[in-house]
Amino acid sequence: MEETNEVKIGKKELMADLSELQQRVIKARLPVAIIFEGFSASGKGAAISSLILNFDPRGFEVYATRPPQLFERREPWLWRFAEKCPAKGDIAVFDRAWYSGMMQIDKKVKKPSQFITYFEDINMFERQLADDGCLIIKFFLHISRKEQKKRLKKLLAHQDTVWRVTARDLGDLKQYNENREFYKRMVEATDRPYAKWHIIDAKKRANVRRSVMETVKSELEAALEANENGRAAAVDVPQKPYINVKFNLLPAKKIQEYDLSLSLEQADYRARLAALQQELSDLHNVIYKEQVPVVIAYEGNDAAGKGGNIRRVAAALDPRGYSVHPVSAPSPVELDHHYLWRFFSSLPKTGHIAIFDRTWYGRVLVERVEQFTPPIRLSQAYNEINEFELMLKKWGAVLIKFWLTIDKEEQLRRFEDRQNTPAKQWKITDEDWRNREKWDLYADAVNDMLTYTNTDFAPWTVVESNSKYYARIKTLETIISSIRAHL
Amino acid sequence: MEETNEVKIGKKELMADLSELQQRVIKARLPVAIIFEGFSASGKGAAISSLILNFDPRGFEVYATRPPQLFERREPWLWRFAEKCPAKGDIAVFDRAWYSGMMQIDKKVKKPSQFITYFEDINMFERQLADDGCLIIKFFLHISRKEQKKRLKKLLAHQDTVWRVTARDLGDLKQYNENREFYKRMVEATDRPYAKWHIIDAKKRANVRRSVMETVKSELEAALEANENGRAAAVDVPQKPYINVKFNLLPAKKIQEYDLSLSLEQADYRARLAALQQELSDLHNVIYKEQVPVVIAYEGNDAAGKGGNIRRVAAALDPRGYSVHPVSAPSPVELDHHYLWRFFSSLPKTGHIAIFDRTWYGRVLVERVEQFTPPIRLSQAYNEINEFELMLKKWGAVLIKFWLTIDKEEQLRRFEDRQNTPAKQWKITDEDWRNREKWDLYADAVNDMLTYTNTDFAPWTVVESNSKYYARIKTLETIISSIRAHL
Repeated sequence: MEETNEVKIGKKELMADLSELQQRVIKARLPVAIIFEGFSASGKGAAISSLILNFDPRGFEVYATRPPQLFERREPWLWRFAEKCPAKGDIAVFDRAWYSGMMQIDKKVKKPSQFITYFEDINMFERQLADDGCLIIKFFLHISRKEQKKRLKKLLAHQDTVWRVTARDLGDLKQYNENREFYKRMVEATDRPYAKWHIIDAKKRANVRRSVMETVKSELEAALEANENGRAAAVDVPQKPYINVKFNLLPAKKIQEYDLSLSLEQADYRARLAALQQELSDLHNVIYKEQVPVVIAYEGNDAAGKGGNIRRVAAALDPRGYSVHPVSAPSPVELDHHYLWRFFSSLPKTGHIAIFDRTWYGRVLVERVEQFTPPIRLSQAYNEINEFELMLKKWGAVLIKFWLTIDKEEQLRRFEDRQNTPAKQWKITDEDWRNREKWDLYADAVNDMLTYTNTDFAPWTVVESNSKYYARIKTLETIISSIRAHL
Repeated sequence: MEETNEVKIGKKELMADLSELQQRVIKARLPVAIIFEGFSASGKGAAISSLILNFDPRGFEVYATRPPQLFERREPWLWRFAEKCPAKGDIAVFDRAWYSGMMQIDKKVKKPSQFITYFEDINMFERQLADDGCLIIKFFLHISRKEQKKRLKKLLAHQDTVWRVTARDLGDLKQYNENREFYKRMVEATDRPYAKWHIIDAKKRANVRRSVMETVKSELEAALEANENGRAAAVDVPQKPYINVKFNLLPAKKIQEYDLSLSLEQADYRARLAALQQELSDLHNVIYKEQVPVVIAYEGNDAAGKGGNIRRVAAALDPRGYSVHPVSAPSPVELDHHYLWRFFSSLPKTGHIAIFDRTWYGRVLVERVEQFTPPIRLSQAYNEINEFELMLKKWGAVLIKFWLTIDKEEQLRRFEDRQNTPAKQWKITDEDWRNREKWDLYADAVNDMLTYTNTDFAPWTVVESNSKYYARIKTLETIISSIRAHL
């Protein structure tokens, strides 16, 4: 550590600049992710240590990526990284990040071809962060085989440092050449204009410290400048959704074309409800046994009956194996992150069911109608949602998406009923009435949503909900058949 | 599940009452914890299932307590429960709680005498929650040995339910009598007026459902009523701190009595700093090897030099093994919980160091001076803090508490220096100047803090900080000697 202690004269200015730049990052509310990857014993820890000494601790966090724990293995592999992404104005420093993370999933696999799907996931993940304004700085610390051997030997020679050398480190030394080849492919596959790799010759520690600090300085300066200019320039962006051509969209009917006269008699409803709940209850056991995660997404008009519908599903489930996540306006902390961030923490574990009462589609519904979201980000949102859902599918989840639709007259009847029944009054607010005035704007948003997110791997189920009985039976049947199709 | 499906006529009213009571809980911002413990196969899941169907999912959460995972075993044992405690207006339902939690730590131990320390921890934990306004409802579901055997046999007989029976369940059946004796002692030891046990005869499922719902109803009604009356009545409470007599307080000098002329020459400082940092760097390795958690708490006057002091400590540490937690005003979510809640998430893992830049002492400093905290809660705060720190010590942590003290003239010099130096201006705000006007009020608060929280297991170190050099050396020396004393 002594090397980081005394400041060389030439560096004082550089260090002061970094301190000041961090204050500008906070003011500009720029999220920054700084990633350190590299060979074992290449000095990542020391490099991070000397970098963060320039920063006020109120504005940064260091994360060390260790092999995933049990609860982390029960989530999508990027899950544990998604939650650590920096908020606006924060700097997140990763001592190994998702690159080491993908290798920790199966330590034996090292062939680049087996990692193509991970590289795709990473490029998607980093692009989404960058589109949301995050600056990504990636360092790769390179040392030769000879140097690596020397350093590991030195660590092994002292009683107080021997524990730092893991079995993996020694394995890495053994297959240095394969690793070098792998890292080369990795860097090639994930070097992107919005997330460039900086390769650092890590033989001389002083060189590492200086290169890291200089790179961070110039990247921060460029991003802060772009940030200021970008804000002024971002006008007149077309609102047409940007959808990656690789997504196959299924045809979608317009919401106005559904037959809302569909209904069900009470006696029929009761009998079918009991039978379907029993069936779902049995299936819940199988889901757990097979460790399949299930995500059920409810969207729909106000007063379309989401709550009552969810209750009929929940009544069939063991409370230890499901949870309901009501989604309302984002909190300040959530607003400071990518809008998908808050949904990661509510994802089910494998073998569990997560029911969302409103979802990530708020982005293209309320945020679009109320113009909370800049047009450019809105146009990217449909694609980002498709990518998010593809991640869930790749993970092995059953994903079921409901739009509960009622017509304007039915909504009025229900609003008035709520207003006039004391026990239901808490269910209706002024906001519901204001939303109702924007009925047509919402209908347009719903139709775009159904058009641009009706992918072949995560299609919508529109539920005709003027008859609550009919709607509840249809959702239960859809849930059961979707799960069965997966098992 | 079929049993929970159809609502018996007699229960409709009870269920409607519970729905309405939940709305009152939200409005009254009452935090509620409902705990289910009991014999294996006593029907906790079904009881919870039928209870929560009455609630709007926006206001409750169900937690199932499973054996602690690796990362949870590296924290104080109550840590994983503390973070799940309900916010104001929320209902937290625990399918097994800290009672099963304590048994999960060492599954072989079952003798009540070995659990006395856990019972103490639990009583402390529940009392703190109750003092903070939380309603605690505890159910114990009782079945006979015969009934337990019958139920486990039934589960084992069906392919889809056989996985529900764990090795632990079968072990429990085997030692039913010992378990009954143990539960009896547990209930006796933790039955408190603010956290009463409700023993439910769980042979008939219908009886369980009804008893649970009726008990929850009457407890909620009583708490809501007390809540309304209590708010009007809580005036004229003496501000004298309430300290449990079992805490041994060491004598504490008044803050005005410290010699602030203590100082150090630059050359002497440089030499000692380098040596001490090297020593701490070496110790950091030992801490990790021995898996000792270390908590370093910094408090002090504004501009006393906490930041620069922490930097000199951090420079000696490997960034993978420490983090700095700057503490500022609580967020809305944090305000909705017990004030100690937010510090749990920042505790170090075993083998790691957590440095707090301001701490839980904000409760008896800024919250006291600005009168953010009702007098009754303030008088309880000193005791609660001692209990929190005792928990850290019982866990095995090294706990070091610094008060960095400067005099009023030195503070003025530093404020003016910050004001006049562009690179330092971000460090000074109007609030700092306002706080300075309350210098004497803060001095009183500091003296009470030093008097009432100077326990023999977590004593204060006051650091004379008019000389930054002197202060930095003194904190480094104190950290090193405290760690050495523990190892």
